[in-house]
Amino acid sequence: MRVFGIDCGTECTGYGIVEWNDAQREPRLVSLGCGGIRLPKKEPLPYRLSLLYAELSALLAAHQPDAVAIEEVFYSVNAKSALKLGQVRGVALLAAANANLSVAEYAPLTIKSTVVGYGLAQKEQVQFMVTRLLQLDETPEPADAADALAIAICHVHTAQTLNLQRAGR
Amino acid sequence: MRVFGIDCGTECTGYGIVEWNDAQREPRLVSLGCGGIRLPKKEPLPYRLSLLYAELSALLAAHQPDAVAIEEVFYSVNAKSALKLGQVRGVALLAAANANLSVAEYAPLTIKSTVVGYGLAQKEQVQFMVTRLLQLDETPEPADAADALAIAICHVHTAQTLNLQRAGR
Repeated sequence: MRVFGIDCGTECTGYGIVEWNDAQREPRLVSLGCGGIRLPKKEPLPYRLSLLYAELSALLAAHQPDAVAIEEVFYSVNAKSALKLGQVRGVALLAAANANLSVAEYAPLTIKSTVVGYGLAQKEQVQFMVTRLLQLDETPEPADAADALAIAICHVHTAQTLNLQRAGR
Repeated sequence: MRVFGIDCGTECTGYGIVEWNDAQREPRLVSLGCGGIRLPKKEPLPYRLSLLYAELSALLAAHQPDAVAIEEVFYSVNAKSALKLGQVRGVALLAAANANLSVAEYAPLTIKSTVVGYGLAQKEQVQFMVTRLLQLDETPEPADAADALAIAICHVHTAQTLNLQRAGR
């Protein structure tokens, strides 16, 4: 199972691709890559959104994931920030839909609980645990990329739990 | 000059195409069509956004406008509504950018002042004036379509004023 995680942001949108590799003797989670898509501040918004859409679409085409996972939005932000974030999020969801991929959404609390074991974990704790779980040599940078990997890991875990439940184990 | 106006909404996004026709003896504004794109409520959001993107892209390709005009968002809405509206707006801006069209944004106050002559005009007054200015036989429905025509008219007027200023008249 291969999952493409997206952490939307108005300045930088993180992405991370995680695969549950059970072909090995000891099945494990592996990272197939991660990064951040920075939108050039000086360009007009429609153009910035078209860059994001093109980059995400190219990454989805290159990695051929089975699903996309994205963070549910935290409503404590103000309306102005929510609108800006919504514009980015709408384009990310569209890239997934136009690649015929289903999208799973997870609350930040769920993602942190799954990855760190503590729903109110700090950004650094998420980076630390993502690095450990995926046995990476370096901490994923930017932090948005680590967050995107965390979202993807959360989806893999949730899907596995559901499969185990279905199998009656 | 042909302008494609978009009035984004989480349930229904209005559009309207207006042309300043100066080939006639008595140049005037004409409507080339308007309507509302309703997003099916029961479908998942990414799918709904892909329908909106496909419909807007098809309309832009069919009408070949010179520019797109869209409303600036009114920040008094709450963060949850702003996020939802932002998702729709991001997709509308992307459709314009991917059709290589520039996007002009106008505040609701500017649009109403231009079309009705009063910045705090009611929806019905906007519908009435749009019907009159474009010499339509019927009031555009839904109201979002009339709003989209109003946004397009606002852009035509603004562009003409700028042209007259540039010409030193």
